[in-house]
Amino acid sequence: MKKLNVIGKRVRRIDALAKVLGKAVYSDDLVLPHMLYGKALHSALPHARILKLDIEKAKALSGVCVVLTAKDVINNDKYHRTGDTWVLAEDEVRYVGDIIAIVAAESEKIAEHAINLIEVEYEPLPVVISLEDAVKGIKLTRCDKPDNIAMPIQVTRGDVDTDFEKADTVVSGKYIFPCLHQVHLETNSATAVYELGQLVVYCGSQVWFRTRHELSKITGLKEENIIVKAMVMGGAFGARNEQIVPILSALLTMATKMPVKFTNSRLEEFLTTRPSVGMEIELTIAADKKGKFLSKKSRLLTDFGAFTSDSDAVTAIASLRSDINYRFNSVFVEATGLYTNHAPTSAYRGFGNQQMHFPLESLIDELADKLNLDPTEIRLKNFTQPNDISIHGNAISSCGLNECMEKAKKLMNWDKKRKNKVPGKGLGVATLVHASSSRAGEPEFAGSCSELRLESNRKFTVLIGECEMGQGASTVMAQIVAEEFGICPSDVTVIMGDTDLVPFSTGTHGTKLTTNLGNSLLFACKDVKEQLTKCLRERLGTGPVEIKDGQIISTNTQKNLMPLSEAVKQASYANSGRPFIGLGIFEPKTVMGDRTGYGNIAPTYPFGIQMAEITMQEDGDFIIDKIVSVHDIGKVINHDMALGQIYGGVMQAVGFTTLENLSINQEGIFQANTLLEYKPPTILEMPEIIGDFVETIDPYGPYGAKGIGEPPIISVAPAVANAIFNACGIRYDDIPITPMKVRKKILEKKKNEKQSV
Amino acid sequence: MKKLNVIGKRVRRIDALAKVLGKAVYSDDLVLPHMLYGKALHSALPHARILKLDIEKAKALSGVCVVLTAKDVINNDKYHRTGDTWVLAEDEVRYVGDIIAIVAAESEKIAEHAINLIEVEYEPLPVVISLEDAVKGIKLTRCDKPDNIAMPIQVTRGDVDTDFEKADTVVSGKYIFPCLHQVHLETNSATAVYELGQLVVYCGSQVWFRTRHELSKITGLKEENIIVKAMVMGGAFGARNEQIVPILSALLTMATKMPVKFTNSRLEEFLTTRPSVGMEIELTIAADKKGKFLSKKSRLLTDFGAFTSDSDAVTAIASLRSDINYRFNSVFVEATGLYTNHAPTSAYRGFGNQQMHFPLESLIDELADKLNLDPTEIRLKNFTQPNDISIHGNAISSCGLNECMEKAKKLMNWDKKRKNKVPGKGLGVATLVHASSSRAGEPEFAGSCSELRLESNRKFTVLIGECEMGQGASTVMAQIVAEEFGICPSDVTVIMGDTDLVPFSTGTHGTKLTTNLGNSLLFACKDVKEQLTKCLRERLGTGPVEIKDGQIISTNTQKNLMPLSEAVKQASYANSGRPFIGLGIFEPKTVMGDRTGYGNIAPTYPFGIQMAEITMQEDGDFIIDKIVSVHDIGKVINHDMALGQIYGGVMQAVGFTTLENLSINQEGIFQANTLLEYKPPTILEMPEIIGDFVETIDPYGPYGAKGIGEPPIISVAPAVANAIFNACGIRYDDIPITPMKVRKKILEKKKNEKQSV
Repeated sequence: MKKLNVIGKRVRRIDALAKVLGKAVYSDDLVLPHMLYGKALHSALPHARILKLDIEKAKALSGVCVVLTAKDVINNDKYHRTGDTWVLAEDEVRYVGDIIAIVAAESEKIAEHAINLIEVEYEPLPVVISLEDAVKGIKLTRCDKPDNIAMPIQVTRGDVDTDFEKADTVVSGKYIFPCLHQVHLETNSATAVYELGQLVVYCGSQVWFRTRHELSKITGLKEENIIVKAMVMGGAFGARNEQIVPILSALLTMATKMPVKFTNSRLEEFLTTRPSVGMEIELTIAADKKGKFLSKKSRLLTDFGAFTSDSDAVTAIASLRSDINYRFNSVFVEATGLYTNHAPTSAYRGFGNQQMHFPLESLIDELADKLNLDPTEIRLKNFTQPNDISIHGNAISSCGLNECMEKAKKLMNWDKKRKNKVPGKGLGVATLVHASSSRAGEPEFAGSCSELRLESNRKFTVLIGECEMGQGASTVMAQIVAEEFGICPSDVTVIMGDTDLVPFSTGTHGTKLTTNLGNSLLFACKDVKEQLTKCLRERLGTGPVEIKDGQIISTNTQKNLMPLSEAVKQASYANSGRPFIGLGIFEPKTVMGDRTGYGNIAPTYPFGIQMAEITMQEDGDFIIDKIVSVHDIGKVINHDMALGQIYGGVMQAVGFTTLENLSINQEGIFQANTLLEYKPPTILEMPEIIGDFVETIDPYGPYGAKGIGEPPIISVAPAVANAIFNACGIRYDDIPITPMKVRKKILEKKKNEKQSV
Repeated sequence: MKKLNVIGKRVRRIDALAKVLGKAVYSDDLVLPHMLYGKALHSALPHARILKLDIEKAKALSGVCVVLTAKDVINNDKYHRTGDTWVLAEDEVRYVGDIIAIVAAESEKIAEHAINLIEVEYEPLPVVISLEDAVKGIKLTRCDKPDNIAMPIQVTRGDVDTDFEKADTVVSGKYIFPCLHQVHLETNSATAVYELGQLVVYCGSQVWFRTRHELSKITGLKEENIIVKAMVMGGAFGARNEQIVPILSALLTMATKMPVKFTNSRLEEFLTTRPSVGMEIELTIAADKKGKFLSKKSRLLTDFGAFTSDSDAVTAIASLRSDINYRFNSVFVEATGLYTNHAPTSAYRGFGNQQMHFPLESLIDELADKLNLDPTEIRLKNFTQPNDISIHGNAISSCGLNECMEKAKKLMNWDKKRKNKVPGKGLGVATLVHASSSRAGEPEFAGSCSELRLESNRKFTVLIGECEMGQGASTVMAQIVAEEFGICPSDVTVIMGDTDLVPFSTGTHGTKLTTNLGNSLLFACKDVKEQLTKCLRERLGTGPVEIKDGQIISTNTQKNLMPLSEAVKQASYANSGRPFIGLGIFEPKTVMGDRTGYGNIAPTYPFGIQMAEITMQEDGDFIIDKIVSVHDIGKVINHDMALGQIYGGVMQAVGFTTLENLSINQEGIFQANTLLEYKPPTILEMPEIIGDFVETIDPYGPYGAKGIGEPPIISVAPAVANAIFNACGIRYDDIPITPMKVRKKILEKKKNEKQSV
């Protein structure tokens, strides 16, 4: 492999300066002349019939420009692909937060006042909050599927019954993983302008083009008359795959012909956006006496909330993905997605995978304990190996699990600490797998396209339809161009997501940008290089040349002929000003899953090992001392940013493992509606995090790279749970594992021990 | 030629709606948060040494953020290509309006107040206002050329002396054509933002990339860190080839790190922008007794003002261009560009060509009178013919002068009216030639480049570096795309001039857009068509297809396979979202003029005939009744817009022929500093204008088209002067020919007649 100058280096983020100096323009920063402000009326009840809806007083309020209800939205029922929802509630509301009416007014205060003047009379209907109730089949209206079942999955691979018969040991458990809020710090905001038949929506999104498509379906405008303009984003984490705010602002601007801004308060974020899919998982593992896994059975109940959003896809990933970690003979899984009367659930970093890793990795720990094996040992016996085809068809082009385990053990000093166990201390380990560049969005579409422009003044611009949501993708793309042309990453402008400027894209998800998009950008660089050198050769008579370190070098004499900047100017002038526009397409060799999910939906799979060390007081109060997080992500493109992904993912996971709680009560209301109540972790709750990498060079990634976006969040919860077991001998099977819960069980255990004495 | 559906039709301007509804955003409409306002201190004297410049009081004023003088501008002397000027005056001022200091303040009022607080002490220096004085050689500082001569031209073709010896008739005269203001209704305005090392300037311009280059030279920033963003423009007419306002706003934003808007008042437009080049022309024509032209001698003194701007190029065009009209055996021309102490002069629609057409066409009229020939007849005898090579090397690919004359005569009812002459009525005629796509800007660069994007949602976007300045070029480009793809022109978005988005361009001048740019866009359309049909054939298995009326048609079966929109979506998806990006380059086969101007600087030449009919009272008061304006512009792309160009050009010419007057007094001050004083024509001064076309199909233009941007302004003045002679028998040789001047000469004539009686 040739020497790399920029790739693999600790390159500063190209967007750092703008963010640090407050120059980055987020959605809510946008101020347009004569702008109106939008606000929404949310359902106060989790399930009810609307008997009366009176908007007259609101309309009459001075400063109010328009009040819209369901009947004003021509394609109200065309919202989202799954067909089980609407934009504004029609005769019925299905969750607290369901939007009944929207207002545009001259100020946010007036809009809020108008909302309070809208009169709604409800007839309460039966409420389904828990998965238990949902299974009982209390009928929810607008649910044309029987027994509230939004989606059933049942998959059998291999001979599960025979494997279970052969088994020496069987372990099983029931686990609870709740709905979680992604808590991106910037709340949703969109500003829409409808003028001269063209709709422009300024917002943050992971899926600019899906947003454009949704806007087209609901407004009836042709997609070619809609532009979604990308704003800088303060986080996304899956929560911006499906957003209502851009649609509301669009409806209001089309009704008023004035620019309309719609910004969520934090409360509105909790009420109306899409938390992650809560799950109840029953799991059974069968193994032989040496600890070799034979088979696995799982049953999932997954909580869709009031409509599907992307929870069907999340459920599918939860059902199958984690099996890639190990070599199972057979597996059985049955998953049932259920409607309930709270906010619809959807994607969160890990996309269902962290939900299933919690029971899987907890139960493997239990199995190791039962067989008297070290938890690292039992995993090493069963790890998937490079070039395996997983039981679900995934082709493993690279896998560094063994090396990750070795490195993690060393970083944690595992063997020594386990051997010389100190009372009150606990060590836990968990494995993880994810997919990099998983197919999503359009079924016929698995690839990415990059456009690279090189202008007569040597300006490099990358145009792509994916987004920068804080993960650093723009810097990775700048590094790739810089590497290929021998320039500085800060010399590259990256435009991500202005639907009129950039190639179509299915969006930003599935840890796909570095691999999929990165590969396409490499092809675009190649395209530009070929065009430029051809022009220099044919029009400027340089003879064969190559581009190296920002210079044009004669291939024959290796003489430096001129700087790249001069070459581009001359070549462009010789072509009447033609810019060099390179297009790169990468279509990974993936296979869409069949009806049972068998297939190879991603070109590469990142793996990792997470370890937790905790200290527990006798009363159960504990702190996480240290997380070791070692990842096989192929070639590391930017060491600092990859570490940043580890820190961020681990921090989120530490949060939901031990602190966060939406607490949906029997009235269907999230009890935690402020950051103070929801309790995302602060720096005070952070353990020491030691991140490291195993650089398998993956054949499908650019320079051998795989993705790191989602993995770090995935298996922190079981690592911590296993460490707690190691410390106090008690297993915890529902998230969050708060010190209070731990203490409760410790007290119970002590009580039982006393009684049995 | 295939049937055309859109080209040649009366297509509505694609920018009409936005302009009519007030939705178009002009430079001064832009409001940015925390914006400052710029103002300039102008020299009060036409020529003086600055003894003292005290800005302290201005700086101390509350709300003033910065005051800049020459010493604050690092590359103050690098302004403009000709090296004879500076951005801000250094030790010396050279014209009333020369900028001495600039201020940025929190409001325009404060900025104006600050300007008034700046104290300047001048030592007056000798002043050169008239060309007469300039010839005398009063020395002007910073003029390193001898005798104030900024530029000498001397060209001899053929044997002038012999031709003059052979001549039967010689006529000669001395003519004055003053400096004129272009009076685009929108005054210059620019808003600049310097942030994170990047300078963005929002402004109107004919030459976005030259503006970027100027900004780079003066600020020292690399071109790749400068973006010039195109705003909608309210006219340009050559006056926006060189602009100081974007530079001033850039200097102020770089000094304050805040956005700065700088908008000229109308007075500042008169003081600091570049009026057209005033000329004194001596002309002699030699002919045989039948009226065949033999030779021509001309001597031009041209008035550069305080520095060169583009008046050197204007002088060159004035010296040579009009000779293309006729077949001369030999010509001699000597031109001298002179510095004077008033505002620098530069381009105005026609670019010097209208200046020389006035004496040439006036003197030909005199010759016809002397030889007792009808003025149309003498011209017909001498016209250039198709496939001629002019005396200066211009290759005439098409020429419809004969047909234009025939049509104009019919429209004016010339023969009948001349025969049955009514007292007080007068008829005049004049010929014109111009160049379409004349080389300008970069010497190595004669072409244009177009980019055409076709996105997955069937959105067509044309990206070009030239500008829409009211002439309708964006609509012409939309028509070309619409014609080629069988769609509506209103379905095409045209982006003209955002230097980070569009191909490099030398700018908008030389009546080049329809021909040069249009041709390049045709190639871009072809490129997109080929890419799309190839993809349909190879990736979607359609077999050979063609695009017709917005549909995909099987070449073999002529069956309609699918709409273009569906085809684009499928083809783009099959290519991972790849947009279809077509690039078209047109490089006309032109030859840069040699040192004497011999060459073929344009691929095509538009011709025309203008006729005027006037009614004169006995006291000399006259009105222009009618202008007939017939043009050979090849294929007419848009009849209404081409007529619009005729109306506009004729209107401007009627204005400067009979009304407008900058009146530079001996103090170097333009006496007309408001529209009321300058007197551009209103609708009340407008004659009936009858425009028509001769559609020669030019081999080099798209669909056979040549340009119509500049021609209509060119020969109205001599047509009117000749009509006045026809009415009263007196020749007028200095513009403007106001009724007062006419009356004065009539009174003189009567006095002389009385005396001689």
